Amino acid sequence: MSYELRPIGVVESPLSDTALAPNQGDEGAPLAWLAIDAEYSPALTDLAPGAQLIVLTWLHEASRDVLRLHPRGDATRPEAGVFSTRSPDRPNPIGMHVVEIVAVEGTRIQVRDLEAIDGTPVIDLKPVLGDVATR
Amino acid sequence: MSYELRPIGVVESPLSDTALAPNQGDEGAPLAWLAIDAEYSPALTDLAPGAQLIVLTWLHEASRDVLRLHPRGDATRPEAGVFSTRSPDRPNPIGMHVVEIVAVEGTRIQVRDLEAIDGTPVIDLKPVLGDVATR
Repeated sequence: MSYELRPIGVVESPLSDTALAPNQGDEGAPLAWLAIDAEYSPALTDLAPGAQLIVLTWLHEASRDVLRLHPRGDATRPEAGVFSTRSPDRPNPIGMHVVEIVAVEGTRIQVRDLEAIDGTPVIDLKPVLGDVATR
Repeated sequence: MSYELRPIGVVESPLSDTALAPNQGDEGAPLAWLAIDAEYSPALTDLAPGAQLIVLTWLHEASRDVLRLHPRGDATRPEAGVFSTRSPDRPNPIGMHVVEIVAVEGTRIQVRDLEAIDGTPVIDLKPVLGDVATR
């Protein structure tokens, strides 16, 4: 049994190498664009600068057969199960990023704090809800 | 271009009907189990009762061609683009749930606050990080 993910757009970023990208978006990621496919324009109308946004991506360069690893690639830290880490290497390499919208130009959305590299497929956008428990 | 999602397990819940399930997990969801496939056992070792966990699911009963809707199914609220809502109906129907681990029995994880219905495929588990910005 499997399901088919269809990208809704792509990340455009000065980051081009996962080895040089920060581990988390608030650790120095540059401004980036989400170039969303035009067919999804009706789904984007309520996104506005200043708002926070959850971006789900498909980390297309990840390895899907890693089950244990040293968190943040730090060999001095004990090995952990991948489901206790945010490692991109995991059975379904979905990236979850909380970003801030800087600008919206048609179906292009400029965001702050996105550590995904250039060319990363975008698979979903969700609002940040008010209550921490539902973020 | 598309990508293949492979479920890592399934939700076991008393909830069997999306029409009767709460919109959010903290709105009255019953205790549920994540029955994770045995092959992922090495990836689960660091999950413990009391911890919060982000569960990603594939909302298999969702409609993938909805782009605009009334939030929470409330016709009195203005129509919004799906990417500004948490509606299960969306191009890639990925559910994002913040739950609390109640018990761990082998590769079965009992959780609080999961509003997904019985039989929903589980696709990823991620830790809640300390900083709100990375949740």
